[in-house]
Amino acid sequence: MDDQRLPLSPTPRSTLTRDRSKAVLDRAVLDAVLDVGVLCHLGVVLEGSPVVIPTVYGRDGDTLYLHGSTGAGNLRAAMREEVSVAVTHVHGVVYARSAFHFSMNYHSAVVRGRPTELTDPADRLHGLRVITEHTAPGAWARVRHPNRKELAATAVLALDLTEASVKVRAGGPNDEPEDIAAGGVWAGVLPLRQEWGTPIDSADLDPGIAAPSEVAQRTPLSRID
Amino acid sequence: MDDQRLPLSPTPRSTLTRDRSKAVLDRAVLDAVLDVGVLCHLGVVLEGSPVVIPTVYGRDGDTLYLHGSTGAGNLRAAMREEVSVAVTHVHGVVYARSAFHFSMNYHSAVVRGRPTELTDPADRLHGLRVITEHTAPGAWARVRHPNRKELAATAVLALDLTEASVKVRAGGPNDEPEDIAAGGVWAGVLPLRQEWGTPIDSADLDPGIAAPSEVAQRTPLSRID
Repeated sequence: MDDQRLPLSPTPRSTLTRDRSKAVLDRAVLDAVLDVGVLCHLGVVLEGSPVVIPTVYGRDGDTLYLHGSTGAGNLRAAMREEVSVAVTHVHGVVYARSAFHFSMNYHSAVVRGRPTELTDPADRLHGLRVITEHTAPGAWARVRHPNRKELAATAVLALDLTEASVKVRAGGPNDEPEDIAAGGVWAGVLPLRQEWGTPIDSADLDPGIAAPSEVAQRTPLSRID
Repeated sequence: MDDQRLPLSPTPRSTLTRDRSKAVLDRAVLDAVLDVGVLCHLGVVLEGSPVVIPTVYGRDGDTLYLHGSTGAGNLRAAMREEVSVAVTHVHGVVYARSAFHFSMNYHSAVVRGRPTELTDPADRLHGLRVITEHTAPGAWARVRHPNRKELAATAVLALDLTEASVKVRAGGPNDEPEDIAAGGVWAGVLPLRQEWGTPIDSADLDPGIAAPSEVAQRTPLSRID
């Protein structure tokens, strides 16, 4: 663990007013939730209305990197304003004895802030490396890096991880005593896991090239230790 | 299929200006993407800034139902303004021969609109049934329904599925001809699946109550047929 890291310091608007018991104020848990995900949901405001977009991302230290197409002008502009980024891992459905107490077991991180669009070529390349390595660990060393044309087509944004809320729910249902006493209804958790399958070769792959071990034995998801 | 359904009719702001090849204008695909998910990411605007919140939902015909706590005043108010709801299924990571062409295979639906907070008791109960049955199919018939106190604590919102964009990506990487010709780099797809595990009984469960078949043999996720 890197003890040089800033602690998680939510501003008042990120302090949970409900479900306080589920809030986690531990920087290492934020990092773990972000690191285990493959996809985030990015919220921006476009013409006054919220839009949520699934997209890839990467984390390096206290910075979350996002990218987009430089051709997507409206979105690119909106990503330089306040945004919100959520990463969620569902671990299971909580089956209760009453409809009211059904729930999910999960880890979630919601980051808020104003990203900076990177202009320095080295910074931009670093951000793309971080996103690529997050999406496909080990890939950057194997593949062709972005050329000038590809770099020009890609906006790279950096978001400081200073304002974030992390929530965790675990365990069985919180049923009412009278529903437990009444008995007769099954209650528990149905776990949900994400599993990597067996790599599928591209149809145009040269014969004799096998999937590298970092693909074939990619670290399972949904594990937050 | 219900041919009484409205077709997917995006307004100009929901018409994709990029990646047009990935856009799907098929109402049945929207329904399938929503029906297969367990969680959505809800985007609202709070004090001028976007916030993305993971939450459960349910669909009945052309209506998406959401719920929340009546105690969460700011959020409840924001949910009666314009919102965006995204449901995403990642099917795999696309490993390309160049960093630029790494991608994800996925189905995603992004709905936009202004939810209505339901006030009629029968409508509210219906919405909660739809959400409960989406979260845990078959549960509504087995469990205690919300009582007056629980209903008073729950805001139920209905969002018309009139403005939505659906995107799909499938298949292998779209590599550059020169990278394919250069050879030597593995390319393909690493599939990602969500799998239900074995039900875990609640610690306070009466002995002799087994998980019902709709839990123990719950339909696998990530399948969109």
